[in-house]
Amino acid sequence: MSMMLDEIRQQPGILDRTLRRDLSGVERLRKALTARRPRDIMLAARGTSDNAATFARYLLEIGTGIPVSLAAPSVFTLYGVRDSFDFRDALVVAISQSGESTDINVVLEAAKAQGAMTVGITNEEDSALARLAEHTILVRAGKEKSVAATKTYSGQLLAIYLLAYALGAPIRLDDLRRLPGYAEKALSLEPEIAGLAQRYRFMENAVVVGRGFNYANAFEFALKMMETCYVVAERFSSADFLHGPIAIVGASFPVFLFAPPGVTWGAMQELLARLTAAHAEMFFVTDRSNPAAAKIAGARGVTVPAALAHKGPLPVDVYTPIPYIIPAQMFAASLAREKGLNPDQPRGLSKVTRTL
Amino acid sequence: MSMMLDEIRQQPGILDRTLRRDLSGVERLRKALTARRPRDIMLAARGTSDNAATFARYLLEIGTGIPVSLAAPSVFTLYGVRDSFDFRDALVVAISQSGESTDINVVLEAAKAQGAMTVGITNEEDSALARLAEHTILVRAGKEKSVAATKTYSGQLLAIYLLAYALGAPIRLDDLRRLPGYAEKALSLEPEIAGLAQRYRFMENAVVVGRGFNYANAFEFALKMMETCYVVAERFSSADFLHGPIAIVGASFPVFLFAPPGVTWGAMQELLARLTAAHAEMFFVTDRSNPAAAKIAGARGVTVPAALAHKGPLPVDVYTPIPYIIPAQMFAASLAREKGLNPDQPRGLSKVTRTL
Repeated sequence: MSMMLDEIRQQPGILDRTLRRDLSGVERLRKALTARRPRDIMLAARGTSDNAATFARYLLEIGTGIPVSLAAPSVFTLYGVRDSFDFRDALVVAISQSGESTDINVVLEAAKAQGAMTVGITNEEDSALARLAEHTILVRAGKEKSVAATKTYSGQLLAIYLLAYALGAPIRLDDLRRLPGYAEKALSLEPEIAGLAQRYRFMENAVVVGRGFNYANAFEFALKMMETCYVVAERFSSADFLHGPIAIVGASFPVFLFAPPGVTWGAMQELLARLTAAHAEMFFVTDRSNPAAAKIAGARGVTVPAALAHKGPLPVDVYTPIPYIIPAQMFAASLAREKGLNPDQPRGLSKVTRTL
Repeated sequence: MSMMLDEIRQQPGILDRTLRRDLSGVERLRKALTARRPRDIMLAARGTSDNAATFARYLLEIGTGIPVSLAAPSVFTLYGVRDSFDFRDALVVAISQSGESTDINVVLEAAKAQGAMTVGITNEEDSALARLAEHTILVRAGKEKSVAATKTYSGQLLAIYLLAYALGAPIRLDDLRRLPGYAEKALSLEPEIAGLAQRYRFMENAVVVGRGFNYANAFEFALKMMETCYVVAERFSSADFLHGPIAIVGASFPVFLFAPPGVTWGAMQELLARLTAAHAEMFFVTDRSNPAAAKIAGARGVTVPAALAHKGPLPVDVYTPIPYIIPAQMFAASLAREKGLNPDQPRGLSKVTRTL
């Protein structure tokens, strides 16, 4: 078995452990951020962590109303912008599995030098990032051995829910405590996914579509297929896809879709009609609270055996990203095996990438 | 000849015309923004206009130090966030060729309702966007008939330089007046590009790489290849590419690179070494001020016959994006012809896309 698949299976335990640990650091952060509410938030990350940042963008803007941007690190690294950048009243959140991404730490240093509040989200307590950031939210995933990040992604998503809570979003810790169970349900799909993956043995290209809270998952699923299966996997929101790229879709072109219940489903249905007309091959990830998704004519896919629709102050699909990414991770791991590739050691990659 | 190629050729004249027209609207905007400097900037756009917004992100942050974000329209459209979003002291810039993008106009309305300053960049003087926005910078490209946007992209980039000028970036109008000549020089590459494009007749996948000021061009070149050639074209910064996706690159995999002089060249060389080791097929776009790019062993490409390096207060590569996208547009138009496709009417697309 691949380390990747082993680490995918660890996710419910990791989520559970994080939520059972002392959350006093998060409460301290909540106090600090209540006393000094940021005017805007900048997220700095690369790779899988950048996908987690994309999720944070939606959760924080929808949950708190504070404007959020995803940093362009080269502004600070290559172009050397420092004192002229206006970090007044900003919160800068750096996300890095290793905590040793040079460029992300450069952004954090530039922000700190100008008095911005800083938060680090990392899996390594003893890292440059953890030392630099004023506050750290630890991802307690244990050492990640596979080059393809899986358990640290879901761990980062949980850390982002906790950050949103600290920023005053209407997140209830009791809702978060359901996530390990949802992840467990998602894992139960493993045999079904292993069977489905065979069909895609010779797939060379694909598009992954997600919207809103699941836009980040589209990026992450595509990245897993690129890294571990060498599939040229594009990723779009359903709206961006319609603004041009959909021209690449001819008969049999594979399109993977995250299809949660809630406000994004209408836009997804519009896209599905277009894809059906183009005779595309469709594969969905959904759950029991959006039964319409499993009835798309001619589509394959998986349904997480749980009703994930949120009943509360946040949008219906707010807690779907973690249970939805797990089937996608298992799909990539299964497909890599079908293709005879080792997902733990993709060609040309190492675990820590240092860029400027 | 395709309308697309015809419109590509119109670009020097359009840029020249805009710069010769009365710029008093831009001067008025400059006064308004000097009197009330925004705390942050949100850019709202889709498709090609969203690629122009990506350029704006770099130019505005580097040129003014004001934090910039690219809007996630679904936050306002599907998720319905309105009054809770903090638009205080924000400048919201909506970019749309037609000015009739429903979702972009929704973002603008939400911002306006809360007292944000608003600017519209559009090719249509008599559009919903032009009526909504407090200030409009008109792209004077004339009617764009090809579904594949070309002249409105370079026109939007020019409008963004003018916006940066209005925000106090050290843009000299005399430098902008060199752009039509640079565009003319780029157009002179047409026969060379038509010859080079033949080789790619059967290309199905590609990656386009650009960094900093040319990151937007990587998105736009890839979009043109998706729309007009049905090539599954990914787009990355050289840093993001190294953080995972580079695993897709095996022998002969085609990678297109924007290779300007200046601060991004070091990072690009690092990537080139990796691509050379993987026996990838490389194609560069550069100019006479970065002669090293044309000497990459085994690479093909084109050199805009002008020295584009900027000598002034902004980074060296600040004026490369317009002359660099023109060869890319011509490449896509030539490749579409080689593939027997009509670039003016891509399958599944119409000129104005309405999404929510």
